[in-house]
Amino acid sequence: MPEIERKFKVETLPRDLLGPGSEIRQGYLSLEPVEIRLRARDDARELTVKSLGGLRRVEVALPLTPEQFDELWPLVTAFVEKSRHLVELADAVAEVDVYGGTLSELIVVEVEFASEEEAASFAPPDWFGEEITEDNRFRNAALALAGKPPA
Amino acid sequence: MPEIERKFKVETLPRDLLGPGSEIRQGYLSLEPVEIRLRARDDARELTVKSLGGLRRVEVALPLTPEQFDELWPLVTAFVEKSRHLVELADAVAEVDVYGGTLSELIVVEVEFASEEEAASFAPPDWFGEEITEDNRFRNAALALAGKPPA
Repeated sequence: MPEIERKFKVETLPRDLLGPGSEIRQGYLSLEPVEIRLRARDDARELTVKSLGGLRRVEVALPLTPEQFDELWPLVTAFVEKSRHLVELADAVAEVDVYGGTLSELIVVEVEFASEEEAASFAPPDWFGEEITEDNRFRNAALALAGKPPA
Repeated sequence: MPEIERKFKVETLPRDLLGPGSEIRQGYLSLEPVEIRLRARDDARELTVKSLGGLRRVEVALPLTPEQFDELWPLVTAFVEKSRHLVELADAVAEVDVYGGTLSELIVVEVEFASEEEAASFAPPDWFGEEITEDNRFRNAALALAGKPPA
């Protein structure tokens, strides 16, 4: 099921909006032609296989034990760390990702919609910056590999 | 735990030795730097992540449901099919792999040992052919990608 999402940079984060976040660490065992990702989110661990293109997109997530995750993590060639915060908007829930490590100072917000119409009529709050929905340089795999795009 | 194995070609298979075999189909989502393999063996399905080199070899196998396997299989770029037969030898158990598809007529036998000494003192039966333990062209991933090596 394809996700309908819009994605924006955040230049000035309204920190009072943010409750406690989830700590996410995700790294890549393969980037192409199939993306194979390890992800630790708080206490949960998983391996996800994602196809990148093609008519029918595939995504399968497999749970990992902490031991399996720790055994596989050294095989990762590129990774990102971020904390994820949910923010209630008037008509949607935003996911704010505050990146850490070499990407620190990068903040991105994503909003998911139920339909194309809903996505089109969405009015971003003031604190949303430049829209980057179509900018592949802000995909996690690209950030992990190439770092933060120049402003 | 590294496996201690010796591997041989089989030119003339003593078919009366073989009982019914397991049907194995394995394909690769990634070959390098990390090998990520899907395998169906009879009714079991799994995804295995294997490091190829390095001091410490890593291998993690994750069970898949038939649905997950079927969703992922189209992402495979290279695969092999074979039937595997166990054969009791005087002092060991041999695994005979009879390849199918484009590799048909290739038959390989592998014997696993508990120690280097046991491996060194193993006397191959008459029907074992050329030893290919060190010949990387006979690894499954290589066979999947490049086909049967010339005789």
